[in-house]
Amino acid sequence: MTFDASHQKPVTSSLYLEDLSVGQRFTSRTRIITADEIKAFAAQFDPQPFHLDEEAARDTMFNGLAASGWHTAALTMSLIVESLPLAGGVIGGGGQLMWPRPTRPGDTLRVEVEVLELTPSRSRPDRGSAMMRYETINQHGEAVQTFTVKMPLRRRGDA
Amino acid sequence: MTFDASHQKPVTSSLYLEDLSVGQRFTSRTRIITADEIKAFAAQFDPQPFHLDEEAARDTMFNGLAASGWHTAALTMSLIVESLPLAGGVIGGGGQLMWPRPTRPGDTLRVEVEVLELTPSRSRPDRGSAMMRYETINQHGEAVQTFTVKMPLRRRGDA
Repeated sequence: MTFDASHQKPVTSSLYLEDLSVGQRFTSRTRIITADEIKAFAAQFDPQPFHLDEEAARDTMFNGLAASGWHTAALTMSLIVESLPLAGGVIGGGGQLMWPRPTRPGDTLRVEVEVLELTPSRSRPDRGSAMMRYETINQHGEAVQTFTVKMPLRRRGDA
Repeated sequence: MTFDASHQKPVTSSLYLEDLSVGQRFTSRTRIITADEIKAFAAQFDPQPFHLDEEAARDTMFNGLAASGWHTAALTMSLIVESLPLAGGVIGGGGQLMWPRPTRPGDTLRVEVEVLELTPSRSRPDRGSAMMRYETINQHGEAVQTFTVKMPLRRRGDA
């Protein structure tokens, strides 16, 4: 992460830098991903054999049907928006997106967020940023995605 | 980008390190994104007011309806898969994803790919990696997304 988020306009009006502390964690609700959903998303956005068809996927590096990484990412966003107090900030500009392993049909996913770092802006006393890690975790406790992002935040006047 | 992609299993079987050169560029076909598509994607994956409804979006930081960044990302992937020789590599593990500005209803998007760096593996003579930048560009020539990724590649035996 090299970009400076502290000058960006904060997206969320409800969350302030002072509401967070380093090491703080939030967990989303869970969501199951089905083979049909995997194929429908792939047909629209990522029509490659290993995302479209069990048979064709067998002889690829995935050794079977796997969700598009962008499907995992979109599904992760839905869990963040629906059940975490940190939704808007994710779109504060982007971040480091990694897919350590594929999402499989029938996987039950949840998102765990950790506050990694809190940085007040040096130039603007009413602004700051939070480095957050959003980990998407399957039913085996394995990460299928990590998204690390510096989100811009407001600071309270009395800080 | 700190991870080493050179030990990963290459996804594409057709593309070799020797087929690419630093500075090489590819351009995808274009695709128009509509307000209805923006709302449908958001309803499923990113149900926030600025992605769902023109009226509600007016008073947000977006000053109007904007696509979810994950929608821009998914649409970018469709352009890569459909019209560029570099599809599989995008999912080689992840990368740095940035949204410098929002995607708007009616935008015509294309993807421009540039080969930034080619690195033979130090430990495996038949492997290497390519640092690629996928820029998603609107009809005004402005980047709405950049995705920089280190993709694993095979090397030819005679290299």
